[in-house]
Amino acid sequence: MTPGESLRRLREKRPLVHQITNYVVMNETANATLAIGALPVMAHAREEVEDMVALAGALVLNIGTLSPEWIDAMLLAGRRANVLDVPVVLDPVGAGATRYRTETARRILDEVDVAVLRGNAGEVATLVGVDAEVRGVESLSAGEDADELALTAARALGVVASVTGPVDHVSDGERIERIANGDPLLASITGTGCMSSAITGCFLAVNRARPLKAAAEALVAFGVAGEDAAEVARGPGSFHAALYDALAALDPETLDGRMRAA
Amino acid sequence: MTPGESLRRLREKRPLVHQITNYVVMNETANATLAIGALPVMAHAREEVEDMVALAGALVLNIGTLSPEWIDAMLLAGRRANVLDVPVVLDPVGAGATRYRTETARRILDEVDVAVLRGNAGEVATLVGVDAEVRGVESLSAGEDADELALTAARALGVVASVTGPVDHVSDGERIERIANGDPLLASITGTGCMSSAITGCFLAVNRARPLKAAAEALVAFGVAGEDAAEVARGPGSFHAALYDALAALDPETLDGRMRAA
Amino acid sequence: MTPGESLRRLREKRPLVHQITNYVVMNETANATLAIGALPVMAHAREEVEDMVALAGALVLNIGTLSPEWIDAMLLAGRRANVLDVPVVLDPVGAGATRYRTETARRILDEVDVAVLRGNAGEVATLVGVDAEVRGVESLSAGEDADELALTAARALGVVASVTGPVDHVSDGERIERIANGDPLLASITGTGCMSSAITGCFLAVNRARPLKAAAEALVAFGVAGEDAAEVARGPGSFHAALYDALAALDPETLDGRMRAA
Repeated sequence: MTPGESLRRLREKRPLVHQITNYVVMNETANATLAIGALPVMAHAREEVEDMVALAGALVLNIGTLSPEWIDAMLLAGRRANVLDVPVVLDPVGAGATRYRTETARRILDEVDVAVLRGNAGEVATLVGVDAEVRGVESLSAGEDADELALTAARALGVVASVTGPVDHVSDGERIERIANGDPLLASITGTGCMSSAITGCFLAVNRARPLKAAAEALVAFGVAGEDAAEVARGPGSFHAALYDALAALDPETLDGRMRAA
Repeated sequence: MTPGESLRRLREKRPLVHQITNYVVMNETANATLAIGALPVMAHAREEVEDMVALAGALVLNIGTLSPEWIDAMLLAGRRANVLDVPVVLDPVGAGATRYRTETARRILDEVDVAVLRGNAGEVATLVGVDAEVRGVESLSAGEDADELALTAARALGVVASVTGPVDHVSDGERIERIANGDPLLASITGTGCMSSAITGCFLAVNRARPLKAAAEALVAFGVAGEDAAEVARGPGSFHAALYDALAALDPETLDGRMRAA
Repeated sequence: MTPGESLRRLREKRPLVHQITNYVVMNETANATLAIGALPVMAHAREEVEDMVALAGALVLNIGTLSPEWIDAMLLAGRRANVLDVPVVLDPVGAGATRYRTETARRILDEVDVAVLRGNAGEVATLVGVDAEVRGVESLSAGEDADELALTAARALGVVASVTGPVDHVSDGERIERIANGDPLLASITGTGCMSSAITGCFLAVNRARPLKAAAEALVAFGVAGEDAAEVARGPGSFHAALYDALAALDPETLDGRMRAA
């Protein structure tokens, strides 16, 4: 399948994507999920996450604003997803910034079978023990060749590693996909990394047997939407609004032709 | 009173609307409340909800992202609102999707005197025991005649049932109001149902003796704003921004003439 | 230093601003922080706030949606910030509306050395024991001469008092800065007060020895951005998007010339 074919299937199936994510971006990832054509649901109570994930086509775990109850809920939902064969995306926001985040991301990777780990270079490097400069939730440099980082992370962690940046590197431990779509304005607003994780969940829900392709296709679609939004933006605020317009306007017919490999 | 007269009164009185709502839409319902002309306040701590609701003209309870402490706070605030004669709106987001949501919505309806229940067909059907297809927080079909559903829910639950969809059906158990205002773009962003509940709270705060009319007038106002926003939107993101512009620009002089009964 | 020079320095240094803030505005204050040129990080778990604040150039505490765990985290982070000489901004959202908010704001002021208290007249008046009309989180009148209020608060509380309104009054207990920048549309959306507190944190991070100037310069920058956004806005929604565009477009070369003292 191609990005365009996957997008068409996503819009036909409208999978439900269960997201246990951070307070900062909940509205944004829900709207990105709707705009690309899937259905979001946010639910974090330990009392209901196992029921909710049973309805979902994918589960997205995002540690951007942690607390103990939320970690419990992520583990409960993740394990239940594994039993039900619902694919899991992990976004280790801020891993490396505090021990709590690093340890929580590692714990989720230990206790849950994660299909796709979507993070920036600093976060992913932290999780495989490579030195990286991380400031808060912003990764300023990976200090590592990105191909090598994606390959190493995929092998060491048993995931598809989706390392995003100016060029995205996605690997299953053997193959590498490099995607050069996107626009610098994506870094000007908070939550675009989290949105790319949510959209990874959307593509994975309709491609669970092909997580490497699903992860790469999601980044092509999101990057192209970023390019389209940048065309009409006058700054980060208008870019933000235009990004949802662009996600909704993505055309399965033309998407493949716009893919930029690196 | 008419929708336009109620809107004029709302803007004169600027009632405070206390909202205990979900993390996804808090900013959105606060901004919708401000845009229509009222004052929002979000407060969920058990330590303060009884004090806060005492200042309010209406209380809006929304179960979109539940946890046990929030349920306790909703019940505390709701009971206090009843004592103080502050009208209560309940938005049973996702009732039917998980047992936790269904039971929580039922518990609030049991323990709090709810003036208006504002939900989609699937949520309301769940609460009166009618079969409905619900996926996550999206109701895809009610499997039920909507007039009948609104009437039945109003009688069974002792509320004004405000069942929204392409046509909204609002009933107090005897009368039915049908509102056909709105635009399909309202379904393209998250939180528009929650916004309509918040605006129901605004209208109810200046019309507490007439909950059926208040609920219907709120949906007219919100639907007309959706129509105006759709005129200038290029997709869900620009629609979202335009929706607040349109709510703020609603004109009490012309609103009544734009009401579309069904 | 002038507002323009501070803005230039801020964009060079890109300080990390740790924010423990309310659910309603997290996305908004993060985006305002990014737009002005700094890096936001939101973290509220007791398990990590002391680690996170050690990475930060300033800490912003905002009590807009309180609960006991969050108060604990604010106190932990604030005390650690004091030890590390990281300057602290407190936004006492809704102080005066409920006892819980008033007492929490007072407790933070007692237990943490706050550099800048940024609030509206009603909130600040409450904290120095002056009568004020407060409704929810909106301050409708201070019932007090604003110069006097800022001076009194600064002396009584041992802070720089940054009292915002149509004219902002900032005092360290001896001097007063009055800033008349801004636009009425800033009051039409929720979270602009919270954004001004976040931006105060950004300026303080690069000017910790000059908290009075930092607080005043932040309000000049934010007010000018509000003026620019109002030029292109058609209502509160388009103003909101334009506000981030305007913050990002602020020009250090021209900012000083646009300062409006009162």
